[in-house]
Amino acid sequence: MNGLGELPNLASDAVLKQSVPVPKDFVEVEGIDYSQDAAYNMTATDLISSMSHMGFQASNLSQACHIIDEMRQWRGKRKSELAEHEQTGEFDEQDERQKTTIFMGYTSNLISSGLRDTLRYLVQHKMVSAIVATAGGVEEDIIKCLAPTYMGDFTLPGKGLRDQGMNRIGNLLVPNDNYCKFEEWIIPIFNTLLEEQQEALAKEGASALDANSPAVLTPSKLIDRLGKEINDESSVLYWAHKNQIPIFCPALTDGSIGDMLFFHTFKSSPQQLRLDIVADIRKINSMAMAASRAGMIILGGGLIKHHICNACLMRNGADYAVYINTGQEFDGSDAGARPDEAISWGKIRADASSVKVYADVSLVFPLIVAATFAATRPATK
Amino acid sequence: MNGLGELPNLASDAVLKQSVPVPKDFVEVEGIDYSQDAAYNMTATDLISSMSHMGFQASNLSQACHIIDEMRQWRGKRKSELAEHEQTGEFDEQDERQKTTIFMGYTSNLISSGLRDTLRYLVQHKMVSAIVATAGGVEEDIIKCLAPTYMGDFTLPGKGLRDQGMNRIGNLLVPNDNYCKFEEWIIPIFNTLLEEQQEALAKEGASALDANSPAVLTPSKLIDRLGKEINDESSVLYWAHKNQIPIFCPALTDGSIGDMLFFHTFKSSPQQLRLDIVADIRKINSMAMAASRAGMIILGGGLIKHHICNACLMRNGADYAVYINTGQEFDGSDAGARPDEAISWGKIRADASSVKVYADVSLVFPLIVAATFAATRPATK
Amino acid sequence: MNGLGELPNLASDAVLKQSVPVPKDFVEVEGIDYSQDAAYNMTATDLISSMSHMGFQASNLSQACHIIDEMRQWRGKRKSELAEHEQTGEFDEQDERQKTTIFMGYTSNLISSGLRDTLRYLVQHKMVSAIVATAGGVEEDIIKCLAPTYMGDFTLPGKGLRDQGMNRIGNLLVPNDNYCKFEEWIIPIFNTLLEEQQEALAKEGASALDANSPAVLTPSKLIDRLGKEINDESSVLYWAHKNQIPIFCPALTDGSIGDMLFFHTFKSSPQQLRLDIVADIRKINSMAMAASRAGMIILGGGLIKHHICNACLMRNGADYAVYINTGQEFDGSDAGARPDEAISWGKIRADASSVKVYADVSLVFPLIVAATFAATRPATK
Amino acid sequence: MNGLGELPNLASDAVLKQSVPVPKDFVEVEGIDYSQDAAYNMTATDLISSMSHMGFQASNLSQACHIIDEMRQWRGKRKSELAEHEQTGEFDEQDERQKTTIFMGYTSNLISSGLRDTLRYLVQHKMVSAIVATAGGVEEDIIKCLAPTYMGDFTLPGKGLRDQGMNRIGNLLVPNDNYCKFEEWIIPIFNTLLEEQQEALAKEGASALDANSPAVLTPSKLIDRLGKEINDESSVLYWAHKNQIPIFCPALTDGSIGDMLFFHTFKSSPQQLRLDIVADIRKINSMAMAASRAGMIILGGGLIKHHICNACLMRNGADYAVYINTGQEFDGSDAGARPDEAISWGKIRADASSVKVYADVSLVFPLIVAATFAATRPATK
Repeated sequence: MNGLGELPNLASDAVLKQSVPVPKDFVEVEGIDYSQDAAYNMTATDLISSMSHMGFQASNLSQACHIIDEMRQWRGKRKSELAEHEQTGEFDEQDERQKTTIFMGYTSNLISSGLRDTLRYLVQHKMVSAIVATAGGVEEDIIKCLAPTYMGDFTLPGKGLRDQGMNRIGNLLVPNDNYCKFEEWIIPIFNTLLEEQQEALAKEGASALDANSPAVLTPSKLIDRLGKEINDESSVLYWAHKNQIPIFCPALTDGSIGDMLFFHTFKSSPQQLRLDIVADIRKINSMAMAASRAGMIILGGGLIKHHICNACLMRNGADYAVYINTGQEFDGSDAGARPDEAISWGKIRADASSVKVYADVSLVFPLIVAATFAATRPATK
Repeated sequence: MNGLGELPNLASDAVLKQSVPVPKDFVEVEGIDYSQDAAYNMTATDLISSMSHMGFQASNLSQACHIIDEMRQWRGKRKSELAEHEQTGEFDEQDERQKTTIFMGYTSNLISSGLRDTLRYLVQHKMVSAIVATAGGVEEDIIKCLAPTYMGDFTLPGKGLRDQGMNRIGNLLVPNDNYCKFEEWIIPIFNTLLEEQQEALAKEGASALDANSPAVLTPSKLIDRLGKEINDESSVLYWAHKNQIPIFCPALTDGSIGDMLFFHTFKSSPQQLRLDIVADIRKINSMAMAASRAGMIILGGGLIKHHICNACLMRNGADYAVYINTGQEFDGSDAGARPDEAISWGKIRADASSVKVYADVSLVFPLIVAATFAATRPATK
Repeated sequence: MNGLGELPNLASDAVLKQSVPVPKDFVEVEGIDYSQDAAYNMTATDLISSMSHMGFQASNLSQACHIIDEMRQWRGKRKSELAEHEQTGEFDEQDERQKTTIFMGYTSNLISSGLRDTLRYLVQHKMVSAIVATAGGVEEDIIKCLAPTYMGDFTLPGKGLRDQGMNRIGNLLVPNDNYCKFEEWIIPIFNTLLEEQQEALAKEGASALDANSPAVLTPSKLIDRLGKEINDESSVLYWAHKNQIPIFCPALTDGSIGDMLFFHTFKSSPQQLRLDIVADIRKINSMAMAASRAGMIILGGGLIKHHICNACLMRNGADYAVYINTGQEFDGSDAGARPDEAISWGKIRADASSVKVYADVSLVFPLIVAATFAATRPATK
Repeated sequence: MNGLGELPNLASDAVLKQSVPVPKDFVEVEGIDYSQDAAYNMTATDLISSMSHMGFQASNLSQACHIIDEMRQWRGKRKSELAEHEQTGEFDEQDERQKTTIFMGYTSNLISSGLRDTLRYLVQHKMVSAIVATAGGVEEDIIKCLAPTYMGDFTLPGKGLRDQGMNRIGNLLVPNDNYCKFEEWIIPIFNTLLEEQQEALAKEGASALDANSPAVLTPSKLIDRLGKEINDESSVLYWAHKNQIPIFCPALTDGSIGDMLFFHTFKSSPQQLRLDIVADIRKINSMAMAASRAGMIILGGGLIKHHICNACLMRNGADYAVYINTGQEFDGSDAGARPDEAISWGKIRADASSVKVYADVSLVFPLIVAATFAATRPATK
């Protein structure tokens, strides 16, 4: 065929195939307009706005901000307009109108990173309604009140670090002494809690299995207590306690707190503190059912992602969903599943606004918050 | 410089830089020798052996098999040679010599996939000592005894699936009826368990907080009970119960079991079943400390990875570690962390054999098992 | 709502939603049947067969083998049954029936790895029709005939390696002396080629732009010449030359060959060898158009993936497509695009058999070949 | 061991291992200080500055901006202070001091996306010295002058799109008519170029192989011509032509331009335009050698990454390197290789400033440019 003098129709028909007329509602790709002064040292809101028709993850990032604005700005009916049994969920503090119940999930590493300040900001200003975290996402917040975490490098060899007692988290380093300080701080609290649990159990007897029995200590109750005890304004847990924003962590033993609970079982032997996870599943699911609207902001994968989605199944799906993570769907993991998989389960509504941003959270969440929750400074009270 | 007639030394020195003599211990890259008959329709062991010097993940896969063989074949002293307090951990059933305590972790999706048969095979033949799973990794094993999971496609739209009650897990589909069947099966068990817990609590009183109090129900105890009740040889839980291989799942409420426990709180109101996670952290950590040697086979990321590593910290690190997952370290997640990060924490020993295979587990674990645990058929008993 | 004594319908309706009856054609997920003797030290074909209904990438791997078997086993009409202008493409050597024209693409690293032996096996036995490679995929094949590549480690620090003249490719090491040997070997060939080009140009004059002018040297011609000159049975290029399987590499200057061509421009100044890429695009596109059926086996991403797909656009799409790579679609790269994106372009037919296996090629291609092209030993001739 | 009353030293020693005193130069992790007014609707420079000690990719992003500022702001000696043979590379237009030669690479998809405006901005204002692109990165810039690209969705099925003649690039759509328009535009240019090449060849004769022979058409020359012909201020190629910034694309035939060149071989049969890639490797390598300092900004992987790195080997390594891509190193691909691998090859200097940001370029490059090249508006001239 190399010798052909004429182009075969096969090729020209395939390459030069005509397209249907472009539908009227098609939106052109466009980028930043550098003829504008606002294109220089752009602000978060301008940048996000410029990204909306850029394509790829830039568009997704822009859409994530759009959805977050939708979820945080939605207002329904006034409390006074609702029947008593409908007066559930979140209400605007000012005008008592219904608000979205926002579930935010994050993994441990985000608290280890500088994102902790951003997460704390959201809790401090009651911008989220409930949190789901891993054990590390709980304990590292406390530990940072006791001693700092440091910048390191992804390639520092583990053996040398272990010899020096330096624990690596990605490109961060946590001196092991921090965990020793944590032990000193938390063991007395466990002692007190065990005493309280003993007393309650003695008093309650058979009714210790009751829904609201004070004999029942749960991860969310323990976390609330830690937030109270730490009494430090830099802490997420402190503000969560103060603002009564529950932090759920069903696997609270899976981290340094677990190490300390383990140690404590020896100290308090033969007794052991008991941490019940049934009351907490009742609590988080009830919050989802009570919500007028439910929104999810899920930073990372694994348990924290699944747990929020699962709670929203109780209400036949969330109304808004923003996933930010680096997981991929090809291995069938829940961590990497797209929002559309959650729709098949009834965890996100078919008509919900949802998006997944494929990115390390640290790369995009500061910008997202700057363009949404922190687009303007909250009024001081 | 385009016009120069002579090659500048700069470039030739850089490009043609001489290397030091190749060290004697350098190993040449090599692949499959197709002059051999065994290169055709290769067996698992031959394939793995050929991959050892292939480079990239082929080498890592080969190394993973090597480490697994090391961990499963290691034998220490005879029980009779040990002082009484040293007689802990695992022993060979035949000759009573010390064996490696093998912790295997897996995520929910693997049980949903056809890997369940492979995981069950390992449990059935007592090839692993303990398991850490997510809630889905527990309940889907039971549910598969009640009704099958089906092949689907990653791209099936969520809305249509929800309308039909078909839940998607990657490229798999689970009819929602399966969960209805699960509810019917498990609620009576919860009823019984609650009665048992009530009775025990009534009997125990103040000592209900004691280490071995029958009033304390834990995730691992509940899972063991489910394995007993299902009584089905296709089940991982069945064999785990039969062979007394504990399955740990600290966040057991994070899945369909959690939905059912939630429902059950209404049915049994005002009482609630209590699931304590402190006794389980005591149990898994104790197993790690009791181990003569500890090995980890971790399939996937998230909680199941961290939980096993954390338990091995209690013994200053595992002796063998095989990670298989698709996570990346760049986002600082524990899911994506390399074994070397765990070394910095004392979760893997500095001198341990460890490797991470960057792959979807379904792609490599059947081959790994075929070349190691299932290289020869276990003797029937 | 925590106090409710009754489970709200909202939750039970959502969780216990009934599914439609399972369609008759649904296929159950299943794994390896360990009751079979063949489940032990499995052969490649048995393993691949067991993976077909396992889910996730296991299924995709199995499907990839199925598609490869389809493409390599398809036979059309006998040459004698075809009109003369239809007698294009590939024919079976035995019975002269039409065969699939198989385009195989691979990136440089695969030749550096032990996969080179597998790739060579396919070329040696005429199992593929044309190859697209990167510059490294060409030169490393020659260089390996001159000196070996060694096993290294992904974490070896770059500075120390540069000081020693050891170049790292993932977990492999190539002594820089290998490139010095390559320079010694190739520069005389360039001298000869330049003489030939000068002569041809002098002779051809104005017709040096003609389609088949000997004055025109292309990447594929140069590569063929290198294969002839190296005369080494371990080489992919050697067998490609011998079996007249063209190797296309439009960016042949992007590697060590480019360094050497650059050096040569100084040595031959003011003259320069000329490498034309227009004749090669004519050649590869013509092959695609001439093919009775076209199949693609694309190992890796980037240019080699796009180039094969683009050639198949000339015939309105390939009939079979197997992608194996680690790229993801979320960044809009062609490297990460799924086969379905190529369907939108007409590069793969809508009714083609196609699959993407998300994996490092080294992890799966040895197994794929063992279960397909090397399921049985080719007859010696 | 469950019954032990005392905590074994093994565990407490491992968990509570003391760390060495924290070195003085350790830098604490910190995030955004929301007590500052500047923390609200943050500007690009404030955001990037806040990210510097946040950890994970946030830190890498901040470092990328730091390195880009270093490379673009570096100034060496005045031209008048240099010997004549040293007067190579780039000089500041104002004060004639030495500047960094900046090589920027990008893949095709970035031009398809809204990033094209950002890339054009850099070329328009002479902020980069040379570009390496893929074929699509060249042609899509021209095509966008002829007709727009549209927003689509990653999940639109390929078959329906092909039926409508809509080509998908990630979540973008390009009507196939755009390529028809491109054909109409470019074929006359090819006709002219062929005439010119014929004339030159006739005139030059034997000296047509000479370094600067007008008979030699290269990808970079062709691209420059297209930039001249398109004459459209929205175009990257237009400004590259105007500012004499070479665009290298060794595999220029690998895309729509290749389709058109292929078609043209039939139209001009038996003659063919000739595109030589040897003169271009001479040109880019010469630029690298001539550079006072060399910087690399590489957006994406594959050829464009390798080609820039390889050119910088000619000067024993770049002084600055910023990679932004989603590739991973585990498969041994050059696309996923970290800067440290390039150090082993002498492509980046051991003492260079280098960083890899693991991200989709669209997500971070607008922000990077806003905080560096576009931190202030360039003076109009």
